[in-house]
Amino acid sequence: MGNTCAVILAAGKGTRMKSKKPKVLAEILFKPMIHYVIDACKGADIDDICVITGFEAEAVESYLESIGNFKIARQLEQKGTGHAVMMAKDFLEKNSGKDVLVICGDTPFINSQTLKDAHKQHKDEGNAITVVTAKLDNPTGYGRIIRNSNGIEKIVEQKDGNEEELKVNEINAGTYWFDVDNLIEALGGLTTNNSQGEYYLTDTIDLTLKKGKKVGGFTAQNSDIILGANSRKDLHALSEKMRLDIIDKHFANGVEIVSAGSVLIAPDAKIGADTTILPNTIIKSGVTIGSGCVIGPNSVVEDSTIGDNVILNATQCYSSKIHSNVNIGPFAHIRPNTEIKSVVHLGAFVETKNSVIGEGTGASHLTYIGDSDVGKNVNFGCGCVTVNYDGVNKHRCVIGDGAFLGCNTNLIAPVTIGEDAYTAAGSTITNDIPAEALGIARARQENKPGFSAKKLAGRNKKV
Amino acid sequence: MGNTCAVILAAGKGTRMKSKKPKVLAEILFKPMIHYVIDACKGADIDDICVITGFEAEAVESYLESIGNFKIARQLEQKGTGHAVMMAKDFLEKNSGKDVLVICGDTPFINSQTLKDAHKQHKDEGNAITVVTAKLDNPTGYGRIIRNSNGIEKIVEQKDGNEEELKVNEINAGTYWFDVDNLIEALGGLTTNNSQGEYYLTDTIDLTLKKGKKVGGFTAQNSDIILGANSRKDLHALSEKMRLDIIDKHFANGVEIVSAGSVLIAPDAKIGADTTILPNTIIKSGVTIGSGCVIGPNSVVEDSTIGDNVILNATQCYSSKIHSNVNIGPFAHIRPNTEIKSVVHLGAFVETKNSVIGEGTGASHLTYIGDSDVGKNVNFGCGCVTVNYDGVNKHRCVIGDGAFLGCNTNLIAPVTIGEDAYTAAGSTITNDIPAEALGIARARQENKPGFSAKKLAGRNKKV
Amino acid sequence: MGNTCAVILAAGKGTRMKSKKPKVLAEILFKPMIHYVIDACKGADIDDICVITGFEAEAVESYLESIGNFKIARQLEQKGTGHAVMMAKDFLEKNSGKDVLVICGDTPFINSQTLKDAHKQHKDEGNAITVVTAKLDNPTGYGRIIRNSNGIEKIVEQKDGNEEELKVNEINAGTYWFDVDNLIEALGGLTTNNSQGEYYLTDTIDLTLKKGKKVGGFTAQNSDIILGANSRKDLHALSEKMRLDIIDKHFANGVEIVSAGSVLIAPDAKIGADTTILPNTIIKSGVTIGSGCVIGPNSVVEDSTIGDNVILNATQCYSSKIHSNVNIGPFAHIRPNTEIKSVVHLGAFVETKNSVIGEGTGASHLTYIGDSDVGKNVNFGCGCVTVNYDGVNKHRCVIGDGAFLGCNTNLIAPVTIGEDAYTAAGSTITNDIPAEALGIARARQENKPGFSAKKLAGRNKKV
Repeated sequence: MGNTCAVILAAGKGTRMKSKKPKVLAEILFKPMIHYVIDACKGADIDDICVITGFEAEAVESYLESIGNFKIARQLEQKGTGHAVMMAKDFLEKNSGKDVLVICGDTPFINSQTLKDAHKQHKDEGNAITVVTAKLDNPTGYGRIIRNSNGIEKIVEQKDGNEEELKVNEINAGTYWFDVDNLIEALGGLTTNNSQGEYYLTDTIDLTLKKGKKVGGFTAQNSDIILGANSRKDLHALSEKMRLDIIDKHFANGVEIVSAGSVLIAPDAKIGADTTILPNTIIKSGVTIGSGCVIGPNSVVEDSTIGDNVILNATQCYSSKIHSNVNIGPFAHIRPNTEIKSVVHLGAFVETKNSVIGEGTGASHLTYIGDSDVGKNVNFGCGCVTVNYDGVNKHRCVIGDGAFLGCNTNLIAPVTIGEDAYTAAGSTITNDIPAEALGIARARQENKPGFSAKKLAGRNKKV
Repeated sequence: MGNTCAVILAAGKGTRMKSKKPKVLAEILFKPMIHYVIDACKGADIDDICVITGFEAEAVESYLESIGNFKIARQLEQKGTGHAVMMAKDFLEKNSGKDVLVICGDTPFINSQTLKDAHKQHKDEGNAITVVTAKLDNPTGYGRIIRNSNGIEKIVEQKDGNEEELKVNEINAGTYWFDVDNLIEALGGLTTNNSQGEYYLTDTIDLTLKKGKKVGGFTAQNSDIILGANSRKDLHALSEKMRLDIIDKHFANGVEIVSAGSVLIAPDAKIGADTTILPNTIIKSGVTIGSGCVIGPNSVVEDSTIGDNVILNATQCYSSKIHSNVNIGPFAHIRPNTEIKSVVHLGAFVETKNSVIGEGTGASHLTYIGDSDVGKNVNFGCGCVTVNYDGVNKHRCVIGDGAFLGCNTNLIAPVTIGEDAYTAAGSTITNDIPAEALGIARARQENKPGFSAKKLAGRNKKV
Repeated sequence: MGNTCAVILAAGKGTRMKSKKPKVLAEILFKPMIHYVIDACKGADIDDICVITGFEAEAVESYLESIGNFKIARQLEQKGTGHAVMMAKDFLEKNSGKDVLVICGDTPFINSQTLKDAHKQHKDEGNAITVVTAKLDNPTGYGRIIRNSNGIEKIVEQKDGNEEELKVNEINAGTYWFDVDNLIEALGGLTTNNSQGEYYLTDTIDLTLKKGKKVGGFTAQNSDIILGANSRKDLHALSEKMRLDIIDKHFANGVEIVSAGSVLIAPDAKIGADTTILPNTIIKSGVTIGSGCVIGPNSVVEDSTIGDNVILNATQCYSSKIHSNVNIGPFAHIRPNTEIKSVVHLGAFVETKNSVIGEGTGASHLTYIGDSDVGKNVNFGCGCVTVNYDGVNKHRCVIGDGAFLGCNTNLIAPVTIGEDAYTAAGSTITNDIPAEALGIARARQENKPGFSAKKLAGRNKKV
């Protein structure tokens, strides 16, 4: 696929989406539609891409900047698909001698293989234009592909077709390979002599044929490639379709998904065989999960690596690494930059952040571990807090192997708890504790007899 | 719609529901079916409503009392629809000269427009009775509308119809407009000379025609108006239908709903464009949500107002007000009468109740804020508790702007923390702290060396 | 059903499941497929069961051991269904004179009635073999049942059938009743003279007919009995089917299930009428729930007994007993061996374990109650912890009726809090508190003026 480039049309508003966001940034499974199109291009080794922006151009451009290097051409007025491609004139001229893919930025089901195969046919047939087409059971509304023995004769829009033409079920997918130089020339010939007063990209076909050049049609195997979204309801339908496709892929890989109806898995997630995904689990992008895990119900995992045999029950986990044989939840919150070593148990109402938690350590309930380096086999009693913020700066706690923190211990960072050291329940620890020592900071208990009677007397008076 | 009134039939048991509750109180999206019927009446400016109660009459009447003013007539025996309307005799007599809508209390898809349009036709045609009808693809089981040039000739029940009659696909929706005085007269003529031994309301049609008066049929545009529920499974089907209708409405308004399969939104919820609803979110009645929010997954919101750009992640929020740019969750519980000002962050395992929380304030984890007036830019350390209940009375905490509460601070209400004041972690604060002061209440730490060895020795002995 | 026994085929790998687990252990609604088959056998009073194991035999055998007494025969090589049954030769010989059911271990929709009715027909007709059959709209791929006036003439596999035979829509369900002695004899006559080189169990039919014995066909009323799973996707489909069947059963019993799409209920769950199951609730095995409860959203209940009018909101509850009129959640975790008496309230972020919690007691938030005996009308302030583990042993707390525990109280077990006793907020209680006394263990508060200025100065220096 050397000598190729692409123009992606991303200027549209998508009025029916009723959104301040440009349509190509509408997300399907946590990824903007245009990103799927870009991935398909990259997968087909098309690296030089010019994106035509328009509605909310800054938002599109800023997103593009965050994911790679793209040329940008702005379409300030919406004057048709041909006009959009004209905006890329400089880009096209720099790519003279190559082939250019022209594709819409809101067709998330396009795939690399289709782009590659279409280009192969484009070269094999020596076409000036190759239109990607699809066959639909119900082609109503789409431009019909009228072929002759040389290839494509014309594309007929729904409103212009005669009875015979409208019976044709091969339609224009809106994706094209062009010989760049022919395209530049043909764009120059476009006019707005039509009912919409727009420049139609499809008019390049007639202009090209008139030059005696060849226009071919590549029929995609799967008509899903044409699917786009003009409304939130369409978007939901695309999202559900992709959701189920992805779930089928994981089924085929040996993943068990129980009642898949409410399970969302991002396209890039890797999940090992014999892992079970329980209902209502959301796996966002950047996630690798090993085998034998039980994820969910009601868990959210994003940008994290999870080992084998890990339980994440009703837990949210972000940008962290969890080793194998770890048991977390229900109701735990793993915040970014946590590393949890093997055989750790974090129970109900435990939060972690920016910490390393050593092998075999446990925090069963109501505990916060932040900005801490925790050794092996440490026991956090219920209600422990690593006090990492003093109102001005953040500091770290270091907790040695085998330490035992009594319930409701506060560790005021920076502080170091030695190996096998203890803290007494209810202590606020401000100073380091040596190995094997007990740190205690609490007042002695007094019992005041008869308190209840006085208290209730107080109540009676007040009532 | 002046000069109208309504009789709602709500006496039925709904045996197949297997419920102690009367059928009309069965809920669809958190609202009893009869409430939908009442809303449709009110929307058609029918304000004078008599409800016929019977099975579990007290429960129905008590619910009605909670939502408005209604006349009640009890039907002590179940002797047919005609008998039910007879119970409203006093009500009808007081409404002499008007038109009365007779409608079943378990048809939640009825709507005001249908009631208005049917009444208009009733007046325009000068009918004594106007039957609301619907056209069904499969009319089997329903009473067929047999028309002639004057209007409706008769209604034929399934078991009584001849082949020709049963082909008719226009059916009796069970909703009628009557001239009140004609109805009173016709009710007087009803008999129980039929196989069920009941008084049939539809027999009023024949009696009316025999008087030379006119009976018309108003065909509803949408046959959903006839949908009712005789079983829990029916109820679920109605609920799912309404759920999807509501979701479609929000799609059209620009709301993004990701995997809508498990999302429940009450009919009265208002949601701004570009707000995202994540899976398994329940929005109950009385909720307004701004735009740009992310609600869910697994959130429940009821009777609350939410501003713009608010995140409610795995959070339950009841009867509260949340301003804009607030970030809550995961796993937070906003109890009634909380007001959360802009740019507040409440993190994991935080609960609030009956408090005002000022702009820019944060409580990141494991904190309870109850009965408190919290200023701006306050920092709650992990594990803070506003101790609002002394076992006898509840008191308030007042926390000034910029205060910094150390972790595991207890504030024993009533207490005031001055502006920019600090509390030391682990302190139980019983007295006011002046502005900019530090309140500290904790014992000094001691370290006892060699504790671990003794402890383990103890273990060895015991084992 | 005296004089019967069963051979269950459970040696298969289920390659397309892509699992380390043997196929018959794949679960549907938290129960391995083979367990459904065993339950159907037991329900038909077939108590003497031999299971043929093979792939991951130890795993299957270990599971079987955990649920009852079974004979085991291992099939070391996979040489066909006939070969599998040959492995049970000893078992069959011990059951000489009886009838044996031969059935696959991965057909979870089989039911006792079908097995009983088939056996009755087997006896009534004096058959040597009775094949259980099903009628399918689309029989493609299944072995067709070719009948004659005497019963079954032969079973024709898809690839071997002529046009006429392939039109037959009665198919072999893979379940058979055999006269044991005839089976032993017929197994002896099986050969591997076929394209697969395997011993086919169905070849026993021809051998039996050749002996002049009778082979009959029992047609199951419901063709679901043949459903099995060869892939994760199949398994999901079976699971969804059973999920919906179970939900329908509960609908019929008067249970309200709101948006049932994400609700999982184990087959053995008992739920009272007028209980509402909210979305995304998982009810695992061993659960009994009373009437008038509200379970969910997002709750998990396993091996527990729940009384009437109990609320379990976003709560996970394991191996516990909850009496009536209890209100729990959102976000609570009831760990095993908790008994919660009537009118208890456990609020957000509360965990319990191995405790008895008396009538009328409340723990509203952020509390852990473990290894404790809690009386009636006890009030746990926010942040209370029963400190049950000292790093060596676990001990119990005893809390008398009417006790009031101040917020962030630590009770260091073993300890006894007397009736109506109080603890001061923030106290770590190490010694018993007598009835009606106040236990207090905390330092006196000091306020240090001007702290904020110094602190901020510190910040300025550091920045």
